[in-house]
Amino acid sequence: MEDKFAKALRQTADLMNRELSTFLPDHESPEHQLHEAMRYATLSGGKRLRAFLVIQCADLFDVSRDYSVRVAAALEILHTYSLIHDDLPCMDDDDLRRGIPTVHKKFDETIAVLAGDALQSLAFEIIANPETHPSGSVRAALLHKLALASGAHGMVGGQTMDIYSDPEEISMPTITRLQQMKTGALITFACEAGAILGHASPAQTTALRAYAHDLGLAFQITDDILDAEGEATEMGKATRKDADAGKATFVSLMGLEKAKIHAEMLSRQAISHLSAFKENADLLRDAAIFTVERNK
Amino acid sequence: MEDKFAKALRQTADLMNRELSTFLPDHESPEHQLHEAMRYATLSGGKRLRAFLVIQCADLFDVSRDYSVRVAAALEILHTYSLIHDDLPCMDDDDLRRGIPTVHKKFDETIAVLAGDALQSLAFEIIANPETHPSGSVRAALLHKLALASGAHGMVGGQTMDIYSDPEEISMPTITRLQQMKTGALITFACEAGAILGHASPAQTTALRAYAHDLGLAFQITDDILDAEGEATEMGKATRKDADAGKATFVSLMGLEKAKIHAEMLSRQAISHLSAFKENADLLRDAAIFTVERNK
Repeated sequence: MEDKFAKALRQTADLMNRELSTFLPDHESPEHQLHEAMRYATLSGGKRLRAFLVIQCADLFDVSRDYSVRVAAALEILHTYSLIHDDLPCMDDDDLRRGIPTVHKKFDETIAVLAGDALQSLAFEIIANPETHPSGSVRAALLHKLALASGAHGMVGGQTMDIYSDPEEISMPTITRLQQMKTGALITFACEAGAILGHASPAQTTALRAYAHDLGLAFQITDDILDAEGEATEMGKATRKDADAGKATFVSLMGLEKAKIHAEMLSRQAISHLSAFKENADLLRDAAIFTVERNK
Repeated sequence: MEDKFAKALRQTADLMNRELSTFLPDHESPEHQLHEAMRYATLSGGKRLRAFLVIQCADLFDVSRDYSVRVAAALEILHTYSLIHDDLPCMDDDDLRRGIPTVHKKFDETIAVLAGDALQSLAFEIIANPETHPSGSVRAALLHKLALASGAHGMVGGQTMDIYSDPEEISMPTITRLQQMKTGALITFACEAGAILGHASPAQTTALRAYAHDLGLAFQITDDILDAEGEATEMGKATRKDADAGKATFVSLMGLEKAKIHAEMLSRQAISHLSAFKENADLLRDAAIFTVERNK
């Protein structure tokens, strides 16, 4: 079971690396450096879990891969923009991402800001393109959800909380809201996008949203656990950073053991939301297990 | 004639300041600082020329103001994001914008990056919302054009060229391309948005695009002229910055007198593209005159 999932995830990553390359600009021009930075960051690997979720959720409704792969690529591009900006010296000030220098280290800060900005535009451009779906309403609905998930009430709002919250004052409800905004919103979008592409029923959409909600939180708690336990070499990025920075995490708030139990509980709960789907949702069930069992 | 235009532009600015406020987040929350910065930058005035162009072009086709005002607001929000990021220390490093401290001066660099990021998302969110137009295809078409105008092949690409070009090597074709990308693309979008909302014919769309193209270039050349001649107090931002930085501008390449002649020629050419429209395009004609006659 786990092997089937690992294979599917790897295939998604391979597919994304091929597809993403075709969406990214690469022209001889005075602004070529911008294109290089956009490609460098986007094609540097990553689990591509968000892409996997879009494609698997869309598959539940037999959506053409021609459509779901484009949405998956757009989401990975939007996610990449957020990583570039999060790594900036004025944000988390990280030197390493996916095992290689961050964009502002490899290029410079200016290019890092600009590449992030252009990747955000590109994500919307890809989905708005008629090739993503023949129905304008479907494209507009996807764009609306993606914009909501990305902005002040979603990812950027969560990142703001993360940077400016006083660790002494962070409680479980606060950090849960923070993470639902910072990482949960895009993961929820991934699953919701499959539902929108597939014209899912309201009940099916609610189920996939609930699955994504629990999966996203389990994912973040596991990130905190890995950060507390992990080795930098395995993670491909600096670890123990949060603890060293005195940052509040699920681990600092709950302790390591309780955090593990909580993540596993959320993983099982995520799977339970899929009860209305048959075996075609098995890879999504596996993803929930992988989320808490991964070691990087 | 000029008075009628000045009044219409002021009314647009007043309308925008009211409307924009309703779109911007303002909640009691840990990330409230982000909302404050988004409001601070977006509501700090500005000519609102882009909003004016959207509304006037849409008016040519009797589009409901309910629709055009939302697109105009979204465009002003996207423009504001670009100003915040352009002012950053790693970009143009400006302390003053519209007569008040720039966002990274008033708040900090982190909030400036985040507020810009969230404003970009918000611009797409507003247009994607069904309230902007009942047709999903119209919304998706607007979003597609806006994303193209904003990204690596538009505004961000132009800003990259602007920062990284060697002033010694910049020629008239290069600076023209640079400015068409950096400022022209969004001005063209403004006019094109009116055409999309109004289901304009291909000929009408081409005419409005050509008008916007010349207007945008005339606008930028005039900016360079004002920068070379202007006083900081009138402009509400630092002047002579480009010359002091040894940056190539239309003025440095053509000389002041030729630049003025070129701008006026483009302004007349912009007006000539409107020949198929009757007196309902008079405010657009006036805008082309204003563009080169303004003193800030």
